[in-house]
Amino acid sequence: MKYPDKVYLNGNIVPPEDAKISVFDRGFIFGDGIYEVMVQIDGKFFYEKAHLNRLQEGLNKINIAFDTSNLLIEIEKLLSVSELTGKDCLLYIQITRGVAPRQHSYPSDIVPTIMMYAVPKVLPQINSVNAKVITREDFRWSRCDIKMTSLLGNVMLNEEAMQHQCFETILHRDGFFTEASHCNVFFVKDGVVLTHPANELILDGITRQVVFELCKSLDIEIRETPVSINDISEIDEAFLTGTSTQIASIQQIDDHILYKENKIGPVTQKLQEAFLKIKTIN
Amino acid sequence: MKYPDKVYLNGNIVPPEDAKISVFDRGFIFGDGIYEVMVQIDGKFFYEKAHLNRLQEGLNKINIAFDTSNLLIEIEKLLSVSELTGKDCLLYIQITRGVAPRQHSYPSDIVPTIMMYAVPKVLPQINSVNAKVITREDFRWSRCDIKMTSLLGNVMLNEEAMQHQCFETILHRDGFFTEASHCNVFFVKDGVVLTHPANELILDGITRQVVFELCKSLDIEIRETPVSINDISEIDEAFLTGTSTQIASIQQIDDHILYKENKIGPVTQKLQEAFLKIKTIN
Repeated sequence: MKYPDKVYLNGNIVPPEDAKISVFDRGFIFGDGIYEVMVQIDGKFFYEKAHLNRLQEGLNKINIAFDTSNLLIEIEKLLSVSELTGKDCLLYIQITRGVAPRQHSYPSDIVPTIMMYAVPKVLPQINSVNAKVITREDFRWSRCDIKMTSLLGNVMLNEEAMQHQCFETILHRDGFFTEASHCNVFFVKDGVVLTHPANELILDGITRQVVFELCKSLDIEIRETPVSINDISEIDEAFLTGTSTQIASIQQIDDHILYKENKIGPVTQKLQEAFLKIKTIN
Repeated sequence: MKYPDKVYLNGNIVPPEDAKISVFDRGFIFGDGIYEVMVQIDGKFFYEKAHLNRLQEGLNKINIAFDTSNLLIEIEKLLSVSELTGKDCLLYIQITRGVAPRQHSYPSDIVPTIMMYAVPKVLPQINSVNAKVITREDFRWSRCDIKMTSLLGNVMLNEEAMQHQCFETILHRDGFFTEASHCNVFFVKDGVVLTHPANELILDGITRQVVFELCKSLDIEIRETPVSINDISEIDEAFLTGTSTQIASIQQIDDHILYKENKIGPVTQKLQEAFLKIKTIN
């Protein structure tokens, strides 16, 4: 991983080594912020409106008074200075509550901190990963619908995958799979796609929403229903979704091998191909 | 609240306006850090060793490679420059994993960020607060034993108390009280002190541990047992503990009034008086 060439910070665009915030930023002290990640493909941000809506909703949920409606102008400036206008890239946006002396409660007149950067990123047409994943108890909070920067739980759970040379950690709560450390997770059983309902226990990923659209257009049945950890042996296919992960096949869950490393299930493959098509026409 | 006069940051002691970190500090991006708060009383940090041990344990739990054994020398330097040597003050310590390009997994050679500051703070001999508190579902993660900076859940829960002009929010999980948004909570019933066991659902506060010592010396029975939210009406007394809260009586929980505003329960009062004594001899 590399640092971006430029960082947008509160209206200024600076080299990464000059992108510094106060240690009293509540993003640093309390993880008190919301973030968003988008990718630009063929000159357009993929599902831009959905991403920006979710960002606004997240800010509203935790009562950060920031209106994202003017953000696109700032994003354009950043892309221009970063020499990424129209180019395939990944954009990271983080908005924290702002800077104040440390105490849990915050002043009503606090001014949010806006940080963004873009890095060149050409996503593969289809993600060729056939992932090995581990499973762990989902010990995160019960407001995973909020895309916030208090991510230590996700970091710890992801690190377990790294320690086991795996791609991701898929999580279960009360015996049912929720999502992964930074992806959504889907299962396929008897041709039906299954995933956890978009309640407060998971993030309703944009790519997750796209999978619902794709299933509809492909006439594949999809159900929002939690899958039990005891049903792994009955699962035919499984896959991960995320903004930069796109749709990634899962080949092995803990010791349970779904299929050989060079094989991908038919439903997963159909969805990957359909996803590729909408990327090019989006 | 005011900013401190000086901030310690990675070996340098600077004015607060110069205390800046990279936006790529994982403390800012992921809430990936541990913190500690101590108070100096009569020239000595109260239960210093217990606080520093807990800090080290927290770092170990999340695999931040930092040895706190040399921290006392740095704290002395900070106090000296802050003109707080030997004076009553509050010390805040935050250690984050360090700076790296954003991705959940972290490089093995990452260098932790150390930030500390001290502010003058003279604690009252006995905390005269007789708190009104609200109760809320504890939706935080299940590793509350880790004193980490991913604190958005605590911030949100504390904010609810502020919105209701209350002192704190006490939390319950699966129908049993755990702790408060930044304090531990105790109940008294028939002369017996009750508090949640120090498992992964609460932070084992240093003042909480002191209360156990005080109960022993005062021959007051104390039990680590979760109290049901349905038993509030049977509770005689309740109190909060914390490093700067010390021991604060709870007068009202939601609509349930324990006693008149100017009254404090006999067990709470005994503990407050005993706490005052050990502060002066510690």
